[in-house]
Amino acid sequence: MDGAEARRRLVAAPVGHLATVARDGKPHVVPFCFAVDGEMLHSAVDHKPKTTTRLRRLDDIAAHPDVTVLVDHYDADWSRLWWVMVRGRALVLDDDERGRDALIAKYPQYRELPPRGPFVRVAMESSQWWSVS
Amino acid sequence: MDGAEARRRLVAAPVGHLATVARDGKPHVVPFCFAVDGEMLHSAVDHKPKTTTRLRRLDDIAAHPDVTVLVDHYDADWSRLWWVMVRGRALVLDDDERGRDALIAKYPQYRELPPRGPFVRVAMESSQWWSVS
Repeated sequence: MDGAEARRRLVAAPVGHLATVARDGKPHVVPFCFAVDGEMLHSAVDHKPKTTTRLRRLDDIAAHPDVTVLVDHYDADWSRLWWVMVRGRALVLDDDERGRDALIAKYPQYRELPPRGPFVRVAMESSQWWSVS
Repeated sequence: MDGAEARRRLVAAPVGHLATVARDGKPHVVPFCFAVDGEMLHSAVDHKPKTTTRLRRLDDIAAHPDVTVLVDHYDADWSRLWWVMVRGRALVLDDDERGRDALIAKYPQYRELPPRGPFVRVAMESSQWWSVS
């Protein structure tokens, strides 16, 4: 995998995982639906049923804006594993037209019920990738 | 989903994601193959090709033993999403016969080439789960 291929896989992934540091200093990780837009990742708190955990993530980001996003492929054949990791700074926005447009363009699920927000915007600072082969 | 079902899904998952806090205080997340054994999760640094990142995780755990493990299901039908989250304290062991046995019992991939370690053992402290329906 080279940088162009890593980016293709990042852009195409329907879901990744977002790691944050909580207010208490402990690590947290949630599934993360996102759209890539230049050097930004856009995500939203959407209409899916929410838990306290889901919303606490926004507090975590306000306290600790450094985040890591991982996109990876698992296969029972371990020679086919790969991942792409992005580190960046996250920002919570009450509304974000650009983020909403990017999410609707990627996810048919958002077309019927566009996300109202809040939105999370991650400014990509670095990326790494790994594959067995 | 109730607690028993959450545990069944945790036990059966071929892979989860491990979130740690790195020495620099930033969050980190990696794919995590693990076996459940009572209130412990066992994992190992194995024969898959390694990167600096993969090994740095062990340093991170030594500095910040609080970890979060997430097992989740993604589906284009968002009414079928679910996750199970475990918080715990992790320990790195150079060798761990109990962990190796648990991993070999779960993963056919380890039978041919048992993991040499180091091993990571997570003592489960709490768990949460979520599903749309």
